[in-house]
Amino acid sequence: MEERRASDQRRHFERHHFEEELQALKNRLLNMGALVEERVHDATHALIERRLDTAERIIGSDQDVNDLQIEIDERCLRLLALQQPMASDLRLITAAMKINADLERIGDQAVNIAEQAVRILAHPPLKPIIDLPRMAEISERMTRESLDAFVRKDAKLARAILARDDEVDQLKDQVFRVLLTYMMADPGTIERALGLILISRHLERIADHATNIAEDVIFVVEAKDVRHHHEERPGS
Amino acid sequence: MEERRASDQRRHFERHHFEEELQALKNRLLNMGALVEERVHDATHALIERRLDTAERIIGSDQDVNDLQIEIDERCLRLLALQQPMASDLRLITAAMKINADLERIGDQAVNIAEQAVRILAHPPLKPIIDLPRMAEISERMTRESLDAFVRKDAKLARAILARDDEVDQLKDQVFRVLLTYMMADPGTIERALGLILISRHLERIADHATNIAEDVIFVVEAKDVRHHHEERPGS
Repeated sequence: MEERRASDQRRHFERHHFEEELQALKNRLLNMGALVEERVHDATHALIERRLDTAERIIGSDQDVNDLQIEIDERCLRLLALQQPMASDLRLITAAMKINADLERIGDQAVNIAEQAVRILAHPPLKPIIDLPRMAEISERMTRESLDAFVRKDAKLARAILARDDEVDQLKDQVFRVLLTYMMADPGTIERALGLILISRHLERIADHATNIAEDVIFVVEAKDVRHHHEERPGS
Repeated sequence: MEERRASDQRRHFERHHFEEELQALKNRLLNMGALVEERVHDATHALIERRLDTAERIIGSDQDVNDLQIEIDERCLRLLALQQPMASDLRLITAAMKINADLERIGDQAVNIAEQAVRILAHPPLKPIIDLPRMAEISERMTRESLDAFVRKDAKLARAILARDDEVDQLKDQVFRVLLTYMMADPGTIERALGLILISRHLERIADHATNIAEDVIFVVEAKDVRHHHEERPGS
């Protein structure tokens, strides 16, 4: 009787510890998300506000993101090894590893945007930039909300994010059409217009990564793979 | 004594079964790799040989890739749940899940290339296409060899792949410079040149995914994260 009580207590303690570790993992992913979101924001605004120093700072400093990525992966592996979690916890932890990789690649896109910004800022402004900051805003919000959905296991929010990917694609096409007109009319605009088109592609990729995260969330919550069942997406 | 022998036998049987399942997982990843490699090859050659039907076939049919991706993920989750693997097996299975995601995205790039090809083929040829098939060849080989490195746990081969990413980046820059000259000289070439530039970016991303796979292999073999220690890369 005594023994069983001791073993129950130990199990209770282990479960409690496991929950704490899961919470710590979620917090680290939120940190990582906030960090890369800020970098995307800064890179886009370096372009719009013509701040070369900001763009150069982003290119030079991704050590924080990299350190955090490695730490999160190690946390996941430790949780898998020590706790031997089953079913839903297993889906959660393996999803965390995938989400971690997507966040790191969003960080890479911030660097790519900053690199293009440096090139573009060597020339005088081509035109008021309107669609790119909108694309950035939507992509940043998709990233933030996909992580909220993960932390709160909110499949409904995750599904709402999937629908917003189309908005980003439409803006991307619009950016392309407008800039093509500029290039055709005046070859002197080609380099800048090209740079802006490439930035729109980087922003599109950020939205794709946020979409991947949202799909992972739905899988975690519903044990249902929505990656390739696009007919289930609202609004598509 | 009898009991212990029975338990040893069971453990031996389980280990044997586990090894078989791991082998099946590796084979499925090789299948997935071969499938997406073929699609990249076909998409690039649809462009070069001006075969619209091939391009359209690739855009319409990624069900095989999608089904395989889901099957591989399920295998990984089952292995993690049923076998509760430790240390190196754990790294191998979680790496397989990441590699699976990279392969699927290589497949997405094949579709992107085919979509650009359709647009480009609406116009007469701009110039002989030389650098893009070279980029495609290197990226396809990087993909194939990164999977070989995974299956054979060959960290040396994986490191050789990392070095080749720079080659692809150089070709990408060369493609950009040459096509920029065309666009500047004759605005009538802008749409086609833009399409070719975007294809070079898709091929670059394929090489990036192969690089990610190679980094995962090194982590599996050496339990050492090389993702953000670029000083260790040969030739960089």
